[in-house]
Amino acid sequence: MYPDEFPRNAWYVAAHSSEITREFLSRWILGDPILFYRTEAGEPVALVDRCIHRQMPLSMGNLRGDRVECGYHGLTWAPDGKCTRIPGRATIPDSVRVQSFPLHEGSGFVWIWMGDPEKADTSLIPDHHWYTADGWTTATGTQHMNARAQLLNENLLDLSHLSFLHLTSIGSPEIAETAVTVESDDTWVRVSRHMPRTVCPPYYVKVTGIDSDIEREQHADFFAPAFHTTTTTLKPYGDAGDERKCHQKTLHGITPETRTTTHYFWSVSRDFALDDEELTGYVSNSVSTVIGQDIEACEAIEHIIAAWEPSYPEELNIKVDGGPLRSRKIVQAMLDKERAEGVVGRPHNPSDSVARAAAEASTRRRQ
Amino acid sequence: MYPDEFPRNAWYVAAHSSEITREFLSRWILGDPILFYRTEAGEPVALVDRCIHRQMPLSMGNLRGDRVECGYHGLTWAPDGKCTRIPGRATIPDSVRVQSFPLHEGSGFVWIWMGDPEKADTSLIPDHHWYTADGWTTATGTQHMNARAQLLNENLLDLSHLSFLHLTSIGSPEIAETAVTVESDDTWVRVSRHMPRTVCPPYYVKVTGIDSDIEREQHADFFAPAFHTTTTTLKPYGDAGDERKCHQKTLHGITPETRTTTHYFWSVSRDFALDDEELTGYVSNSVSTVIGQDIEACEAIEHIIAAWEPSYPEELNIKVDGGPLRSRKIVQAMLDKERAEGVVGRPHNPSDSVARAAAEASTRRRQ
Amino acid sequence: MYPDEFPRNAWYVAAHSSEITREFLSRWILGDPILFYRTEAGEPVALVDRCIHRQMPLSMGNLRGDRVECGYHGLTWAPDGKCTRIPGRATIPDSVRVQSFPLHEGSGFVWIWMGDPEKADTSLIPDHHWYTADGWTTATGTQHMNARAQLLNENLLDLSHLSFLHLTSIGSPEIAETAVTVESDDTWVRVSRHMPRTVCPPYYVKVTGIDSDIEREQHADFFAPAFHTTTTTLKPYGDAGDERKCHQKTLHGITPETRTTTHYFWSVSRDFALDDEELTGYVSNSVSTVIGQDIEACEAIEHIIAAWEPSYPEELNIKVDGGPLRSRKIVQAMLDKERAEGVVGRPHNPSDSVARAAAEASTRRRQ
Repeated sequence: MYPDEFPRNAWYVAAHSSEITREFLSRWILGDPILFYRTEAGEPVALVDRCIHRQMPLSMGNLRGDRVECGYHGLTWAPDGKCTRIPGRATIPDSVRVQSFPLHEGSGFVWIWMGDPEKADTSLIPDHHWYTADGWTTATGTQHMNARAQLLNENLLDLSHLSFLHLTSIGSPEIAETAVTVESDDTWVRVSRHMPRTVCPPYYVKVTGIDSDIEREQHADFFAPAFHTTTTTLKPYGDAGDERKCHQKTLHGITPETRTTTHYFWSVSRDFALDDEELTGYVSNSVSTVIGQDIEACEAIEHIIAAWEPSYPEELNIKVDGGPLRSRKIVQAMLDKERAEGVVGRPHNPSDSVARAAAEASTRRRQ
Repeated sequence: MYPDEFPRNAWYVAAHSSEITREFLSRWILGDPILFYRTEAGEPVALVDRCIHRQMPLSMGNLRGDRVECGYHGLTWAPDGKCTRIPGRATIPDSVRVQSFPLHEGSGFVWIWMGDPEKADTSLIPDHHWYTADGWTTATGTQHMNARAQLLNENLLDLSHLSFLHLTSIGSPEIAETAVTVESDDTWVRVSRHMPRTVCPPYYVKVTGIDSDIEREQHADFFAPAFHTTTTTLKPYGDAGDERKCHQKTLHGITPETRTTTHYFWSVSRDFALDDEELTGYVSNSVSTVIGQDIEACEAIEHIIAAWEPSYPEELNIKVDGGPLRSRKIVQAMLDKERAEGVVGRPHNPSDSVARAAAEASTRRRQ
Repeated sequence: MYPDEFPRNAWYVAAHSSEITREFLSRWILGDPILFYRTEAGEPVALVDRCIHRQMPLSMGNLRGDRVECGYHGLTWAPDGKCTRIPGRATIPDSVRVQSFPLHEGSGFVWIWMGDPEKADTSLIPDHHWYTADGWTTATGTQHMNARAQLLNENLLDLSHLSFLHLTSIGSPEIAETAVTVESDDTWVRVSRHMPRTVCPPYYVKVTGIDSDIEREQHADFFAPAFHTTTTTLKPYGDAGDERKCHQKTLHGITPETRTTTHYFWSVSRDFALDDEELTGYVSNSVSTVIGQDIEACEAIEHIIAAWEPSYPEELNIKVDGGPLRSRKIVQAMLDKERAEGVVGRPHNPSDSVARAAAEASTRRRQ
């Protein structure tokens, strides 16, 4: 069984930094509608995207300086959530507020904390400096999936699927036949695979220029509940001292939109051919296609799982599922802990059809 | 919390008179499918839009004189609901009937009574004579909303939203800052606002020709559970004896289609520029746009509310909500009374998805 | 009340033989996703269309000889459901299997048994030899309906609807006025109607060439729970020895896709004008149109029924409903018997919205 909810006391990728501007961005996260924008000083802001007066999405209103004016009756809200204007009323108690959410702008990603603000410790955010680091060039993208987030968490921890789902791009037949090692602690899982000799997959031939056999090393790291780094190291087979050793670091923010829909924020950084913009475009297109295949698979699986709910279809677990199952247990344990602690901020559970309709309407910038 | 159902012992606007003809009109009202047509003598008829034999919508059949022949097996029904033909059967008991609903054709609107026919007292229908009265010219329209009806009831009782949602057409900034007075009894709410001096909004500049500041008076009257009149009086500021005092009377039939979808029947009557057809066209287009903005707001709110169901999001009530909250209490009291009395005619509660699909298929005339 | 589920220990038409090829066909039947294909030797195969490893639809994978390779992680399955490959694993227990379903390829139809395989007795399959018999020419089609299967079962057992729904093609006014006789046993219902003299309906004028009045005999046979044969015999009125006596045998496989969606597999065989291909085309188009009318009616009825669920609207039963009601009782009795026996293979009950979405995605051949 997959976890049926998401931990709230955790950092989630909310957006690429570039997505948050002076124009409103409305995006559902963990079943809550969130409004994102920047202050005039450039600070990102996240407020619940509903005026608590009459539930109008604030994203349908207007940005007045750093404040949000509701488009229905004009109530106005500061970046910290405080109400600064109620038309026709002179004074406003300090307690009149909409929920604001802690954000942290890291290296290329903006992270959001959906739970208890007092616990929003930014040291918990996984290392993701490659996105903007010197000596690395990065391609990025944002995709949407009509399936539950955990399906992607498990996809990313069992890369044997590269031999089948992505055989024509980043996979080779040997991957699925190669044993993995699994390491983990209470919040982290690493699945590693080392292939001393394998064919160089088409995508890597193109990006690295290596068309001989290669030695390939993969580390898939999961930082529960919602972030992955995939590290790929390639060098020509047998040529230990070859200069052309290449690293690719893929970052994956897997952020639940609702119980059964997901945002996928990704970046792919490389430490070679840094100034080759055409190559960056190729990486961007190729990775977008590969992730599209993952999403297509997960959506097909979601159809099956959904048809069995509230039960669950028979499941066969094999050796390679060690990493995925470990991730499932970690997320479930985080959830159980929160439930035991009575974590606030989980007031509702949007039904899927509603959430999907809402999701369609969201992720659009206000015109 | 909004009322979760609708009173049935009440008159609702079912259609503009012009919508009911010799061609079938199928329209869901209060969760029931209703067939409308006129007899050869011109009387409007409302039957439940399902043949009780095999649940075929009668609107898919044929009108034979004053009677409806089911398109599936030919059972035929008179305007009073009595079965007049069962193919292959000579005699038919008088008890074989489909439900028929009391209608009243008033001034431009056809009203329907969904509850106990014995209580269908036409004296309960609110005054709406302006629609067809001498000395008034009227523009009309019918719009559809994917949101619960009470959201519009409350929209129409808090016109402070004109300063924000409709600022470019019928609103001015002063409206939201002007205090209101609220009067009410058990079935009626009036919210009044008097502005001794305000700018003339663009829409009114165009329709009245007054381009100076104006004195403006507004009365928003709600006749529970589903009808509103909005009375606007404008005259040039400070020119007490000016001939150009203008009245606009807007009538709003807010008729629940299902629990979360609504029909909006409106008319706008004016007592000036009576023969200006171009102006009538302008009024028609402008009001249609303004109501479209109200519908867009209510639909966005419905998304939020629906995501919180069966719970309800935190709500902030302010001074200007006196009228809306009063309307909510009146409708709830009507409902509570009906439930205590065990009012019949509420046999089912269509789920929203079904109702929405059905709604899409309905409101179409038979080809 | 209609039966709320379907018997599983029964044969259902799964496809026309021509639909099952070396390309994957995915089709939901009785709420289960099923993958169909043919072995290299031409045998039809049906496996549950989900890899039990991670619930990926097998139809998104590849056919390798007679085996199905999952497109996600490469697990491979034989036609009998046995797992023959798990990448990275040398030996596989015999118990690792996906569900396979007994099929029987009859005369033009492929039949599937969704229940206990041990009870899959092919002698239970109704006679349907006309589809491929010498001396008969056959037109065929497959249509889809967003309504529950029993609505079609009852449609086909009350052909009085030909006088109304199909008056312009295969019906005449006299049909509905003609009394029927009903015969039945525990698994079969026959409704017969004999019209010594009636006008020849437009469709039959065209196919038989008879433009005078006719004598017409109809037998509607239902073989519970999901197959019908309709036998029509026409000859010119009063001309007992006329050579032009024509028989038309229509076969109907009414296979539930989900609780509220249905596959309709049909064939129309005639014993005259055998080589007239233009006529076969006309029959094909005409029957497709007629069945489209039946589907439109049933879908409209489904909307009504769905709005009343979990209750049910008032129902009037008349004389001509003897056959339909008998079919309802037989199917319900089959279901009750299975429930008492605790028949396996009914592990889930897909919700309608999910099923509908899944259904849209299915019935597509893999590109």
